[in-house]
Amino acid sequence: MSRPAAAAGRPVVQKYGGSSVATLARIRRVAGLVAAARRRAAGVVVVVSAMGETTDRLQAQAHRLHRRPPAREMDALLATGETVSAPLLAMALDAAGVPAVSLSGLQAGIRTAPHHRRARIVDVVPQRIVDELAAGRVVVVAGFQGVIADTLETTTLGRGGSDTTAVALAAALRAVTCEIFTDVRGVFTADPRVVPEASRLAGISYDEMLELAAVGAAVLHPRAVEIAAAHGVPIRVRSTFHPRDAGTLICREPAVEPRQKVRGIAHQEDCAKVTVVRVPDRPGIAAAIFTPLAAAGISVDAIVQNVGHEGLTDVSFTVAGADLDHVRDLLPAIVSGVGAVEATIDPEIAKVSVVGTGVLGSPGVAARMFRALADADINIGMIVASEIRITATVPLAQAEAAVRALHRAYELERL
Amino acid sequence: MSRPAAAAGRPVVQKYGGSSVATLARIRRVAGLVAAARRRAAGVVVVVSAMGETTDRLQAQAHRLHRRPPAREMDALLATGETVSAPLLAMALDAAGVPAVSLSGLQAGIRTAPHHRRARIVDVVPQRIVDELAAGRVVVVAGFQGVIADTLETTTLGRGGSDTTAVALAAALRAVTCEIFTDVRGVFTADPRVVPEASRLAGISYDEMLELAAVGAAVLHPRAVEIAAAHGVPIRVRSTFHPRDAGTLICREPAVEPRQKVRGIAHQEDCAKVTVVRVPDRPGIAAAIFTPLAAAGISVDAIVQNVGHEGLTDVSFTVAGADLDHVRDLLPAIVSGVGAVEATIDPEIAKVSVVGTGVLGSPGVAARMFRALADADINIGMIVASEIRITATVPLAQAEAAVRALHRAYELERL
Repeated sequence: MSRPAAAAGRPVVQKYGGSSVATLARIRRVAGLVAAARRRAAGVVVVVSAMGETTDRLQAQAHRLHRRPPAREMDALLATGETVSAPLLAMALDAAGVPAVSLSGLQAGIRTAPHHRRARIVDVVPQRIVDELAAGRVVVVAGFQGVIADTLETTTLGRGGSDTTAVALAAALRAVTCEIFTDVRGVFTADPRVVPEASRLAGISYDEMLELAAVGAAVLHPRAVEIAAAHGVPIRVRSTFHPRDAGTLICREPAVEPRQKVRGIAHQEDCAKVTVVRVPDRPGIAAAIFTPLAAAGISVDAIVQNVGHEGLTDVSFTVAGADLDHVRDLLPAIVSGVGAVEATIDPEIAKVSVVGTGVLGSPGVAARMFRALADADINIGMIVASEIRITATVPLAQAEAAVRALHRAYELERL
Repeated sequence: MSRPAAAAGRPVVQKYGGSSVATLARIRRVAGLVAAARRRAAGVVVVVSAMGETTDRLQAQAHRLHRRPPAREMDALLATGETVSAPLLAMALDAAGVPAVSLSGLQAGIRTAPHHRRARIVDVVPQRIVDELAAGRVVVVAGFQGVIADTLETTTLGRGGSDTTAVALAAALRAVTCEIFTDVRGVFTADPRVVPEASRLAGISYDEMLELAAVGAAVLHPRAVEIAAAHGVPIRVRSTFHPRDAGTLICREPAVEPRQKVRGIAHQEDCAKVTVVRVPDRPGIAAAIFTPLAAAGISVDAIVQNVGHEGLTDVSFTVAGADLDHVRDLLPAIVSGVGAVEATIDPEIAKVSVVGTGVLGSPGVAARMFRALADADINIGMIVASEIRITATVPLAQAEAAVRALHRAYELERL
């Protein structure tokens, strides 16, 4: 094994989530972890989330003042959570004898598209960070926030935005690694709250992680994984509270334990099934239904079109629970636009997914999935599959039983 | 009376202090006041402080992490208080049907000198505000904060900084008036908590207000008054909770009630007397004592040098209580630098001042002051006087009695 010479001088990026900095005592603990990292690395850049439930609290205040708070004002408001935690951590580091400087998204060069609430990072101009690292300082960056370069408007990156900040900075700085410190010990074969015997994965590929994240494994935001994949940034997910654990390495081709196709079982309870009923079955129908949803920034999954009778068909899809109100507002126009009879919504469903590179190409995997669900008396609603994921919708009340049945069926506790 | 044609199109600036926006309910009330102002004015710019005790709370958190938090980190932290209240007020306005936009100090063009904690505004670039006003929006500006233009560092303006923001914006926008909404009904002849029969002044000059502010009338920050005086911005101090009251107009030459020389009695309890004992009495001593204090940004008042004996003299001065720790650190170097024996500190003093244009030129005013204090058995320590203020130090325990005695002596309750 040769030590990569290119790594000399390359910094490490660490990200600490809201629960890791929820109190001043925890901020002091994080300062200790950062100080330790600095002794090993050429430089350390730390991305922090808002303390504990700060973002939720600010959001609740906004909603007490306004039924639908303007998005730009919401961004200005919510970004303050991270603007508080970053200088507090810089102070804790300084108090521990580690020179540190906090930077806002603006100062850190995080430039986003001109949208609010879920802005995409379009550019990172890290010169200030590079200068501060060269001066021997740890750089603490406020996560989740960016700026529209030409208007100086503050933007936020949406849920999990601090992960995105961390990975984007790691890419721009050509960091050795991006460590995501959180309140779990890594990525598991299933949610340990549902499957106590779930195993921690030592490694997982970007693609597999993306599929897990897309269907509810909330460890890491999909956008962060996408950026890491595009730039080949290795991510290590680990626990702030068990810092000796190696956690899970997410990279292109993880050197894993004796592999089997199925890497994990994901599930997502907060979703709903929408059915547009008795749509005239002609070309362009799908576009007429899904274009308005896409324009509103709403992701749909598990699209199924029933076989039509008498020129009419039903189109069903799932949406995230958080988008349901928005979808409800858009449906009447969609229904009349496509000449359908009505739209129905079933909020009592969940998605369960079997994830692993090549699962769809291995006939035994799908067969075992449907057998296991049938043996557990669980009704399958819709099915969608990709190269690395097979997803079934099930009744919400049976979601956890489905996850446990699948975890057992693939013997993931033995991983 | 002719209505000034130049006022057409000129906006009004309003500032609301921390107690005025301490809760969401109060923010809603402020939105109502702003909406009313907008019906009367060509445009409204609102400057807000942080909600209630936010700034103190953030400061306390910082001090729990660091004995002396770095000034730049403190500024980044403290500025968030106003960055929260501004978008909340913008949301409340929008909810009330008043289009509004919040701007940070950076976005509002508040540029300061490259110092932290008490940065001076060096420039206001109000183009964004002008554009937003032209678009028909109320502009809510986060007070207290600015930016160092070439480094994008966040700065804060020190205590009362939001007043300074408001007046500086009023000057830059050529506002009709700058209304300072606070939790008192205006400027009084003395602190009403000490002198219940104190009268509200209908008008007062910039110079008089400056002297009042400098000796403890905390209604308005001196720096704000200085900027207003330099640009001729009329300020009206009024109560958020009694918005029908006219408050007090601060301008160059107020059209006042039948005038008498003395306009008010101010007092400052949080101060200390420092004496540098047995200093060799030679030229340059004062500079050697006061230059290091000035360099540290510490204001001194009431400098008195005793008549020397045997070539030695005592030099006494007063400092604000908030600066006392800092002064204590600097004193040993000052004492040895000037060859003095020691320095003593008396924190148990207060200053009381008689304020009014021309008081020093009217012999009867000073005589009445000393007679009144003597009649009340109050010992006078040091005395300093200017054209519009005569100040005496008194024992802290007698400060309120002194204010009441002086208020009676000049019959200010009849104003």
